[in-house]
Amino acid sequence: MTLSLTAELWPDVQPEAARRLMLAGVESFARRGYHATTTRDIAGGAGMSPAALYVHFPSKAALLFAISRSGHEQTLALVENVLTREQEPAERIRMIVEDFVAWHARRHTVARVVQYELQALPEQEYEIVAELRRRIERIVREVIADGVESGAFSVPEPRTAARAVLSLGVDVARWYTERSRPTPTVLGQEYGELVLRMLGAKTG
Amino acid sequence: MTLSLTAELWPDVQPEAARRLMLAGVESFARRGYHATTTRDIAGGAGMSPAALYVHFPSKAALLFAISRSGHEQTLALVENVLTREQEPAERIRMIVEDFVAWHARRHTVARVVQYELQALPEQEYEIVAELRRRIERIVREVIADGVESGAFSVPEPRTAARAVLSLGVDVARWYTERSRPTPTVLGQEYGELVLRMLGAKTG
Repeated sequence: MTLSLTAELWPDVQPEAARRLMLAGVESFARRGYHATTTRDIAGGAGMSPAALYVHFPSKAALLFAISRSGHEQTLALVENVLTREQEPAERIRMIVEDFVAWHARRHTVARVVQYELQALPEQEYEIVAELRRRIERIVREVIADGVESGAFSVPEPRTAARAVLSLGVDVARWYTERSRPTPTVLGQEYGELVLRMLGAKTG
Repeated sequence: MTLSLTAELWPDVQPEAARRLMLAGVESFARRGYHATTTRDIAGGAGMSPAALYVHFPSKAALLFAISRSGHEQTLALVENVLTREQEPAERIRMIVEDFVAWHARRHTVARVVQYELQALPEQEYEIVAELRRRIERIVREVIADGVESGAFSVPEPRTAARAVLSLGVDVARWYTERSRPTPTVLGQEYGELVLRMLGAKTG
């Protein structure tokens, strides 16, 4: 739990104490689940008092929301980034899968909380996160549909294919650990190849 | 929470009170997580007293183990079943994916506990379940390797491909709900097609 790790995970969050609380939250939620974690556990994990936690986050739910929103914003940003760099559907899908899979492997503990504690979010906060998820899904679906239209891909059900593409990435957070092989980058590349075949891409 | 549902979920478990407790456990664990659930919650969910729970399960961990072991035994059985029915690697993988995906969709609440609460198992119980998981993974990996050897499949990394095949099935438990489309059977068929393409199968 180093200073540099929290800055790498949440470059936009200030001050550092807030980032330290988010990291302690991630670790507790990933280990015991959101509902079994108390604000006292989290504050203790960050080496702070419960009162100090409330200076940065009004509640445990607010802390979960900060973690969840940031994770979804980061994955949406990497998917949107690919659209600006690549024009062809096949290259777009390949790069989306590479980046999305590598993120879930490299950030597996954060990603586990982001992907598996959605139900614990209060309704309004859930809606904000759900909208970010819909945007990610829409992009993947549209890139696949574009590829089908241009003849680059051939899939019977673009909606099911989009589900499958995202599932492959999300599920990495469940099984990937520090000791897993291959590396996040190589896993992303291997999954990128598998997905192109799955979509019936013409390229090799 | 009907009598017939618990008999369908756990045909081998007797008496019915034990099955009712397993169902109440599944519902509580899926909603709030294992650690935040008390034996009192579970007994209450089954319309029983905490003392009555201990007649059937010595602890909350024993109940989780019963749910987890049964789910893994069921999925291993359906995978092994396919091997006795089908001989060709392509048909074996297609049927394994169809059955494995449909099971995770149809039994999504049970499957969520089975797949996402592994860490909460005590060490010895975890080892028993981990061995069942290794057997499932080994079968999928061997069927893929057989197909590569016979020329039915072409994949650069059978181990990564096996991971991807299982991930597609497991992740269904995360997102599938009563209102999801397509039906479990159709989803299994669509995923079966996608996986055959992913493996570079000659058929299809």
